[in-house]
Amino acid sequence: MKSRNGSDLWAFFEPRSVAVFGSLKDGMGLGYVLIKNMLDFGFTGKLYPVNPSYSEVLGMKAYPTVKEIADSVDLAVVITPPHTVPTIIEQCAKKGVKAAVIVSENFADAGGEGAKLQQQLVDITTQSDMRIIGPNTVGVFNAANGFTTIPYPFGYDGVRKGGIAYCSQTGIVLPQCQPLEDRAYPVSKMCDVGNKCDVNEVDLLNYLADDAETKVAALHIEDVKDGRSFMDAARRFAARKPLLIFKPARSEAGARASASHTGSLAVNDRVYGNAIRQTGAMRVNTWQEYWDIPKVFAYHSLPRGNRLAIISHSGGAGVVATDVAVESGLAIARYSDATLERLTKLSPRLAGNPIDLGPPLSMTDDPLSLQEKVISIVLDDANVDCATIVLYVGTMAPISYIVEMFERVLKNVSKPMTVWFYGTSLSLVEEVSRQLEWLGVPTYTDQETAVKALGALVRYSRFKSGLE
Amino acid sequence: MKSRNGSDLWAFFEPRSVAVFGSLKDGMGLGYVLIKNMLDFGFTGKLYPVNPSYSEVLGMKAYPTVKEIADSVDLAVVITPPHTVPTIIEQCAKKGVKAAVIVSENFADAGGEGAKLQQQLVDITTQSDMRIIGPNTVGVFNAANGFTTIPYPFGYDGVRKGGIAYCSQTGIVLPQCQPLEDRAYPVSKMCDVGNKCDVNEVDLLNYLADDAETKVAALHIEDVKDGRSFMDAARRFAARKPLLIFKPARSEAGARASASHTGSLAVNDRVYGNAIRQTGAMRVNTWQEYWDIPKVFAYHSLPRGNRLAIISHSGGAGVVATDVAVESGLAIARYSDATLERLTKLSPRLAGNPIDLGPPLSMTDDPLSLQEKVISIVLDDANVDCATIVLYVGTMAPISYIVEMFERVLKNVSKPMTVWFYGTSLSLVEEVSRQLEWLGVPTYTDQETAVKALGALVRYSRFKSGLE
Repeated sequence: MKSRNGSDLWAFFEPRSVAVFGSLKDGMGLGYVLIKNMLDFGFTGKLYPVNPSYSEVLGMKAYPTVKEIADSVDLAVVITPPHTVPTIIEQCAKKGVKAAVIVSENFADAGGEGAKLQQQLVDITTQSDMRIIGPNTVGVFNAANGFTTIPYPFGYDGVRKGGIAYCSQTGIVLPQCQPLEDRAYPVSKMCDVGNKCDVNEVDLLNYLADDAETKVAALHIEDVKDGRSFMDAARRFAARKPLLIFKPARSEAGARASASHTGSLAVNDRVYGNAIRQTGAMRVNTWQEYWDIPKVFAYHSLPRGNRLAIISHSGGAGVVATDVAVESGLAIARYSDATLERLTKLSPRLAGNPIDLGPPLSMTDDPLSLQEKVISIVLDDANVDCATIVLYVGTMAPISYIVEMFERVLKNVSKPMTVWFYGTSLSLVEEVSRQLEWLGVPTYTDQETAVKALGALVRYSRFKSGLE
Repeated sequence: MKSRNGSDLWAFFEPRSVAVFGSLKDGMGLGYVLIKNMLDFGFTGKLYPVNPSYSEVLGMKAYPTVKEIADSVDLAVVITPPHTVPTIIEQCAKKGVKAAVIVSENFADAGGEGAKLQQQLVDITTQSDMRIIGPNTVGVFNAANGFTTIPYPFGYDGVRKGGIAYCSQTGIVLPQCQPLEDRAYPVSKMCDVGNKCDVNEVDLLNYLADDAETKVAALHIEDVKDGRSFMDAARRFAARKPLLIFKPARSEAGARASASHTGSLAVNDRVYGNAIRQTGAMRVNTWQEYWDIPKVFAYHSLPRGNRLAIISHSGGAGVVATDVAVESGLAIARYSDATLERLTKLSPRLAGNPIDLGPPLSMTDDPLSLQEKVISIVLDDANVDCATIVLYVGTMAPISYIVEMFERVLKNVSKPMTVWFYGTSLSLVEEVSRQLEWLGVPTYTDQETAVKALGALVRYSRFKSGLE
């Protein structure tokens, strides 16, 4: 039996040489698009297109089978009709290929004949050292070296390098389906485990726990093959880095739906909930939380306490932030006397938490300067561990003023903060949010998640301190 | 005591003549911007700028006080320093002005002197027939006639006319802060009640219950002045039209925060929860639900049952939809034998619910046609009451293909459906969503709310049938 400690998963993310099995039809074939993606995203490893109908593609020699490749091959990516896959995988195993990503679908996910085909893959991988991701997967993306196995066009040229590993049991979470460039998510590695005929969430967690690029992992998982190993892996991971788990197939109907597209049946949800909590991992409940909560961990160090400052252009938003903060285990910070004095000097209406900037801003001739002073004073208070900030973006000031203000603020403060922008123009809100992401300030498309993210940060901080 | 039946609120939304009190400084004064907004949005009533320092603005004669206006005045909008407001309101009352929106802040919201000033306003309105909205409000917006009291620039030229009334106790919900054009929300009327020195949520609900333009109301409310009257109004409203209530200040800290920006203290949250449920109104819990759930009611008639079809480009998204459906009181529809036969003919992998379009689409040369067939067949099934559809938008087809497909589908089907688009480009996703909104198909920025919205539709349908 293979080790599940993740040590052999490097071949999926950092292969030195890759064989691609699939259609090389110009501009459209999945093999062609995949090779094009690898080149576009800057992958510099050796590429070997394999297809008996072609002798060349994109200036590279094509090989009829893997046998003809003289070099050693670290990884095979297979995007061919299901019935051809076992033979290809067998030939790869014989050649000593270390790992394979099987993108092709209609295996256990289709049942019947497909399930039998998948069993053949399981047999091959059991009898060799070769590791397999898939079938029925888009595979992996590594932001650090531009390597990917995704054979679909993205519409953008790369993914921002950063600390978040996004893992999933569905392809929808990978870059070919998501606005990763528009949102500027800071990514280390991404992986869709597909039907899990070999590599599963346990291997991945163990691999990523040791991965220097990964600071936090978000895991979408519908079913777990081996509950005990999974909990062990989650516990090991969470002891070192924050782990967020999105576990759909919560309902019985959801579990049945999961079985019909992944070929495996999920178990009782409450069991997962309790087990996950015990490992130190944190459960998230929506796609939005899956995507947006990890950012606080990628950018920020853990806060020393749970005392939150709320600064908002809107009193109504301040109230919502307060509710969600309390529900997320945060405390509403009580500012020090010195802070209250400094705020009161600016305006008596500022001496509270949440701070409603609205009225004082409307009474001053220099609202931008007042806003910056308030944010700086509050973040400077030793009674404040973290902050959530709600700002209008639009006619009051150009985006650059807001971005530059945060640049100045960040020079003096390293406390965790999240920002929610609102305004009348989606493109303006998205642009200022993107620019702040690049500064290392997590921004949110909804106010509630901006606060929940800080709640998760505090919770993990307490777990690490042995308080939870 | 005034009647709270809403009959005299017409002057706020459909005034024939409006006096504007505020700075007329060219391009910047709040009175100036307000008058400009009214003109830009197509309001055709009579306008009377009132400001002793000006004799003319935007080609209109300006008046030193309201007394000099010869015509009768339906509505006064007051945006002047707090200490000047009681005198202005008194003069308006004497002149027989029917209603006033007091935009100025620093009344009860500021405490102290402000609270005393607000009491003067209460006294005036108690002793006259004049109704007041505010102070500390941006007032109203009426999409039907372009009338507004908002003295801030929007950045767009109008709000789409439709059936949703958005009411709130904060200005953040009004058009000067929200991307209403980008999202194409179909709006009837909007109102921020502010400090509620006179008009409150009860008046509004009673007015909107009778308003022909309003098909559904979303109410954001932090505190309720008179619980019994409110519940009566909510009950009357919900008996006629769906009512969604977003009630922050759920936590004690949230209630305190609310008091500090509205000048009134909220009460125990559980009391509200139970009371709201008994009225037939539905509680929503986030800004996103507040904004996006009403759309299903504005576009769709009520479904006959709770049987949901789920059609998705992603198996993983289908599982999430299933979970949220079950949690929202929806049932996963069992298709008729005839439907299953028709689907199986297209592909054996289609014969389930949720339907994962992914694999069959990747195996056909004409994915667009297959997708349209599947959607039509499923919506045609008598066992299906409503549907949620998840579609990728990007390289597969231009937006126009997707929009035209829905145009054709809508010709034959009138069942409620919600759509969640995903893809690599935010602007593309937003554009196709906007175009579908104009077709009357509610689209969502997150998958979960797309399903919850149908859950709310079914719940109201059951309430109307006496089942809940």
